[in-house]
Amino acid sequence: MKDYNKKKIPRATAKRLPLYLRNLTILDTKGVARIKSKELSDITQVPSATIRRDFSYLGELGRSGYGYDVAFLIEVFSHILDSNEESRIAIVGFGNLGKALANNNFRRNENLIISCVFDTNPEIIGKTIAGFYVYSMADFKQIAQEKNIRIAISTVPSEHAQEAIDIVVNSGITAILNFAPDRVEVPDNISMRYIDLTTELLTLLFFDHNYKKTPLAVTS
Amino acid sequence: MKDYNKKKIPRATAKRLPLYLRNLTILDTKGVARIKSKELSDITQVPSATIRRDFSYLGELGRSGYGYDVAFLIEVFSHILDSNEESRIAIVGFGNLGKALANNNFRRNENLIISCVFDTNPEIIGKTIAGFYVYSMADFKQIAQEKNIRIAISTVPSEHAQEAIDIVVNSGITAILNFAPDRVEVPDNISMRYIDLTTELLTLLFFDHNYKKTPLAVTS
Repeated sequence: MKDYNKKKIPRATAKRLPLYLRNLTILDTKGVARIKSKELSDITQVPSATIRRDFSYLGELGRSGYGYDVAFLIEVFSHILDSNEESRIAIVGFGNLGKALANNNFRRNENLIISCVFDTNPEIIGKTIAGFYVYSMADFKQIAQEKNIRIAISTVPSEHAQEAIDIVVNSGITAILNFAPDRVEVPDNISMRYIDLTTELLTLLFFDHNYKKTPLAVTS
Repeated sequence: MKDYNKKKIPRATAKRLPLYLRNLTILDTKGVARIKSKELSDITQVPSATIRRDFSYLGELGRSGYGYDVAFLIEVFSHILDSNEESRIAIVGFGNLGKALANNNFRRNENLIISCVFDTNPEIIGKTIAGFYVYSMADFKQIAQEKNIRIAISTVPSEHAQEAIDIVVNSGITAILNFAPDRVEVPDNISMRYIDLTTELLTLLFFDHNYKKTPLAVTS
């Protein structure tokens, strides 16, 4: 496969690739073989002109009026997103949310694997809970390196999030998903993504009040 | 307070209001009284020209070079987002994720209140778990109406999500946050928002690989 130069994809386009990939995978599961930009627009809520422009950065993916081959798009986007590469995940904080994530374990993508879980609670450290051995945060760096962890997901509440994420950063991990919405300080080379459910709910309510006729985007 | 005509705010601007509000609230908590668009840009990762344009739709919020009054912005944005109005929430599906949400209970916003929880598992229906009485989904419509529920958060896995959300829609609730990423069919008047953690992780990994120097936006 042609080696797409990722650096040349505009950032705004790059942000939409996982959304396209996710929806194309659903379409593929449902047996849809070809799709037009207008149809993909209806599903993703991305304007069809934007979709065509995004796809144009990725080479010859389809022909005007004929639509795009779904399986081929999935192959190209998977290649670009590297989602064919296995990524091991550590869960930091093994309360209800940590357990929910471990239990779900990103089943939809066989390359995202929760490999180990950590906590600071002496009552659960060293025990096997919901199928996972609970490691101490004191051993994070050693275990994360041994297990070749690529991503940390922190479910630690805001008041202790900085402390937990400092330990993660110190281990060499650069990709962190944080469920505590307060900003934490991290070096420039760290990619941090926040899941802020309060903001999600306020956005939902706002659109429900004011934009009834236009459905919300699938995800952003 | 001036009655801002919500219908006239562009949809793209509207989507950013909860993000601005969330970060302004953090700044206010930290004692920051005034902020320039450039500084808010550094925090939110929204370009400062976009911030100034967004704010221009909302009237005279600040003066060039002098910055914006944080408390006043919070007042205006809260008014626009109606987040001073109490919104009662029902949790549909009371497993680990449901419990994590109920336990967190959106403490950051006193107007978002989880009022009741539902499940279909006969082993937990009728019991009080983590402080919540677990209602049967069979009683959803009646309880939701009695308790004046405004939003449903579904933690039901994809294979049963359509069934659960049909019951929610039938109760008259129009705002739904869905943690199962597969599309469900809903009428046009329903505002549905999906939280898709697999896509969040793929996006994080992709940006971590390819865009090291530019930190990700706080939320979208």
